Amino acid sequence: MALKKEQRIGRHATLLLLTDDHRELSQQTEQIGWKSCLGKVGSMESQKVVAAIEVAAKQQGVISQELYRETHALYHAIMEALHGITRGQMQLGSVMRTVGLRFAVVRGNPYEDEAEGEWIAVAIYGTIGAPVRGLEHETLGLGINHI
Amino acid sequence: MALKKEQRIGRHATLLLLTDDHRELSQQTEQIGWKSCLGKVGSMESQKVVAAIEVAAKQQGVISQELYRETHALYHAIMEALHGITRGQMQLGSVMRTVGLRFAVVRGNPYEDEAEGEWIAVAIYGTIGAPVRGLEHETLGLGINHI
Amino acid sequence: MALKKEQRIGRHATLLLLTDDHRELSQQTEQIGWKSCLGKVGSMESQKVVAAIEVAAKQQGVISQELYRETHALYHAIMEALHGITRGQMQLGSVMRTVGLRFAVVRGNPYEDEAEGEWIAVAIYGTIGAPVRGLEHETLGLGINHI
Amino acid sequence: MALKKEQRIGRHATLLLLTDDHRELSQQTEQIGWKSCLGKVGSMESQKVVAAIEVAAKQQGVISQELYRETHALYHAIMEALHGITRGQMQLGSVMRTVGLRFAVVRGNPYEDEAEGEWIAVAIYGTIGAPVRGLEHETLGLGINHI
Amino acid sequence: MALKKEQRIGRHATLLLLTDDHRELSQQTEQIGWKSCLGKVGSMESQKVVAAIEVAAKQQGVISQELYRETHALYHAIMEALHGITRGQMQLGSVMRTVGLRFAVVRGNPYEDEAEGEWIAVAIYGTIGAPVRGLEHETLGLGINHI
Amino acid sequence: MALKKEQRIGRHATLLLLTDDHRELSQQTEQIGWKSCLGKVGSMESQKVVAAIEVAAKQQGVISQELYRETHALYHAIMEALHGITRGQMQLGSVMRTVGLRFAVVRGNPYEDEAEGEWIAVAIYGTIGAPVRGLEHETLGLGINHI
Repeated sequence: MALKKEQRIGRHATLLLLTDDHRELSQQTEQIGWKSCLGKVGSMESQKVVAAIEVAAKQQGVISQELYRETHALYHAIMEALHGITRGQMQLGSVMRTVGLRFAVVRGNPYEDEAEGEWIAVAIYGTIGAPVRGLEHETLGLGINHI
Repeated sequence: MALKKEQRIGRHATLLLLTDDHRELSQQTEQIGWKSCLGKVGSMESQKVVAAIEVAAKQQGVISQELYRETHALYHAIMEALHGITRGQMQLGSVMRTVGLRFAVVRGNPYEDEAEGEWIAVAIYGTIGAPVRGLEHETLGLGINHI
Repeated sequence: MALKKEQRIGRHATLLLLTDDHRELSQQTEQIGWKSCLGKVGSMESQKVVAAIEVAAKQQGVISQELYRETHALYHAIMEALHGITRGQMQLGSVMRTVGLRFAVVRGNPYEDEAEGEWIAVAIYGTIGAPVRGLEHETLGLGINHI
Repeated sequence: MALKKEQRIGRHATLLLLTDDHRELSQQTEQIGWKSCLGKVGSMESQKVVAAIEVAAKQQGVISQELYRETHALYHAIMEALHGITRGQMQLGSVMRTVGLRFAVVRGNPYEDEAEGEWIAVAIYGTIGAPVRGLEHETLGLGINHI
Repeated sequence: MALKKEQRIGRHATLLLLTDDHRELSQQTEQIGWKSCLGKVGSMESQKVVAAIEVAAKQQGVISQELYRETHALYHAIMEALHGITRGQMQLGSVMRTVGLRFAVVRGNPYEDEAEGEWIAVAIYGTIGAPVRGLEHETLGLGINHI
Repeated sequence: MALKKEQRIGRHATLLLLTDDHRELSQQTEQIGWKSCLGKVGSMESQKVVAAIEVAAKQQGVISQELYRETHALYHAIMEALHGITRGQMQLGSVMRTVGLRFAVVRGNPYEDEAEGEWIAVAIYGTIGAPVRGLEHETLGLGINHI
């Protein structure tokens, strides 16, 4: 039931965000039959971050637009990633802060046992801070769920 | 007051954990005069994770052993990283889960303006799951604080 | 000081919501001199859920409109029920989700010892999910307080 | 994608706990091919509550003992139910309180569309209070997840 | 229904902790017929803080030893004060920190309208920090409830 | 590294809010070279509370308008104080409550060892309750950070 070292989808999703040239990683994703998408969003409204990731994942075919169970799996992965981004209260504008974020969603099978099926990873990286340019520091979050 | 693109300490600390060969990154750290340390810890007791990071950062000279203000800065950066690791309740054994983690602590000046001084980044990456080998998935957290 | 088995107000309030025919339960409530009310509310704004329950309980005479201590007791019972409904962050629209809920408020004396006085139970049941019809699952919460 | 009114697994799991005679409900469960189990646990240690539910669900065949994805789905449903039970901090003994609980786990397909597949509901009901007999009130929690 | 300016029990409980000479305040309490107690506790175990306050309030007659509703009112006031003390997770040793605290519990009628009855205030003040002497800063919490 | 008894900035900030005549305290602050400011804010929007404190501290020279590290230190001290004020969810209007608050910010060196440098304390005191005059009780919060 172990994780395959070369198929850690959380690490993969995070590296997609952090490396300057992600072509090699994207090729690797395709070769093993994973699906992924990248996007960006800046807002003081937390719901816009959730919506941006959901829309990107649906439009780029990472999750089905028809099945609620896939939306549900993605939603909870986003919530978990937002715990890392917000570190305490899942609030942005209502505690006077704003974010500028990029995100990656990766869907694949990270376990050696085929029966473990597909999982989804949501990685988010960017800056968080006061609604004034430059008054900000880095922030990072990762959520993982079965799908 | 902007972040220097090539001196993002959060991204740097995270890449130290995620890249297979971190020699290049470590050299880069030294060249710009940053301090950093790496370590690992596995436990069902959350306080052991906190203690492992504090001990490593003090023993390897990333923070002073004498000054409470440095311990305080590190402690809150660890707490923030643990929000990403635990995603909801900062508990391990008491909600029946265990972790196997590696961590990196980086101390440096990420802002263009010298007056912004030093900041500290704590990145943690590994697995979280049931106390049974293999019943686990990846987890990641990042905390940033001024020091 | 034990709870009376046949006077468990939390179970009673929940069954009022879950059973198709609640006439029998309502009669039982009246016979033992309890007060109760039922209502429903659908919204993406969490304050509307709080307000709907407070208004119903006051208008239907479950709590006094004059006494702050009764509003305070009800408010905290609602907050506790919302922990069950929201499971982590007490937020709806700001984390891109909406609810369709029914609620019951029951006020009575659940303890054998008369001196334990009156308590209040708030039960909430319905669906929570994306702001798209059908992308939702059930949710349930119960709050109990002395009044 | 709507929920089938007669197949609401959360309501079903909760009624299994709250009704005095659950034979009719259990028969209904069998007829539509759902799996379910019942159990009880009393403790000041929250991990014992988690473990009791996991062990019951595995031993009684509600989830697979082999697949991590099923353990993962159940675990998060338990965590969500514990939000309703604990209402704020997922802690028992460490905030000086204890629980006496019964639980039901139900696995089935609550949606009209077959493609939505199986979901799992964890309902928990009982008392929470000071570690002194009688100094307690009712508590209830429900968690739902795709499996 | 307004608060009486000279009968603010939260302010009173806090001043009992913060002023060097609390004889004047204690006399004032007696004159208006309030009950109060003072105590101290140091621990890495959060349940010991809860227990110390409960024991003091019962032994010194601030709340009844017989009635659960009074224990329940005090318990939630303690929990609220601990939110101020712990600021995020209601944990001490499990996140590697310890406290040295003094506390005051005051019971009285703070509202102009007699019908608002009695309320209880729990104020806690002291230090929180690493389990090393001196690596600590001040912390303060206040909880208020109807009783 | 111990706290100086007569230089406890958290106690000082709280007393500035709670004592009727704070001239003596303000003089004392000046004599030892600390900086402080006082202000008030009433709102159902939590971000207005944050903004009011930040604006006051910057305009009255307690923190620098130029340095992000000082804004960051103050921001986290405000967040910690708001944990005491809100006791569970850092939300006001979205859980149907409002506040009327006064606040004090004090900046100084509370430790015997000069090398511990400057720290900042944010104390907030006032009322919280339903958005109806008089349906409210006291609330208090304190946040401390190195700066």
